[in-house]
Amino acid sequence: MNDVPQAGTTALMYEAYIACLNARDWSQLGAFVATDVVHNGRLLGADGYRAMLEENCRDIPDLHFNADLVVADEGHVACRLRFDCTPVKDFLGVLVNGRRVVFHEHAFYTLRDGKIAEVFSVIDKAAVEAQLRS
Amino acid sequence: MNDVPQAGTTALMYEAYIACLNARDWSQLGAFVATDVVHNGRLLGADGYRAMLEENCRDIPDLHFNADLVVADEGHVACRLRFDCTPVKDFLGVLVNGRRVVFHEHAFYTLRDGKIAEVFSVIDKAAVEAQLRS
Repeated sequence: MNDVPQAGTTALMYEAYIACLNARDWSQLGAFVATDVVHNGRLLGADGYRAMLEENCRDIPDLHFNADLVVADEGHVACRLRFDCTPVKDFLGVLVNGRRVVFHEHAFYTLRDGKIAEVFSVIDKAAVEAQLRS
Repeated sequence: MNDVPQAGTTALMYEAYIACLNARDWSQLGAFVATDVVHNGRLLGADGYRAMLEENCRDIPDLHFNADLVVADEGHVACRLRFDCTPVKDFLGVLVNGRRVVFHEHAFYTLRDGKIAEVFSVIDKAAVEAQLRS
């Protein structure tokens, strides 16, 4: 990894961030997320970002982030995340009601000073809908 | 870029691939796509992949691929693609019927021997639906 030290560092930071989420270790979130973080064009800030994650975990108590594929350069991380979980009620406007769904999220993170400053996330809603039809 | 020559090469290949798509230069697609390419878990092969793209362009005559954010390492490319277009009829099961929609696709590409061997793509269907409701 000597030829790409910065990309390697970025990927390691992201691994630690995912571990933080899976541990619900919200007090450590500030180590990974900038105070003025923007998510899908909305300025959430670190507090709003934490509130969003806490809400996700309330809506989906067995939420676990699986980083299936990570691509990193010195200033960005892109991750294909896999979820295998049971949302209690609504999810993405779909009434899941405690059924098990498996789906992916594709997220792009722009880093600043080693922290996540901007996130663009797309969740595979069509996959969730298809599973509930079956 | 001397310290990450392979990632740089990968990004350049991807740029040429996007130019090929935007030029509808299907005869050149084989330079970028492996003969046994897999798309979202389906073995399409180069011919099936080309047929999928040609169908996309029939359904959306003004389809143009805008690579908003590219993250590459030596074996992968991740891209946030932006589309601003007018699907003629159906799109992702949504009856767009010639209205203009702006949405993103988040795509991950795994390369083998410098060609795209596997693609995982998620399109922001919720954004399309939201625009048609407004």
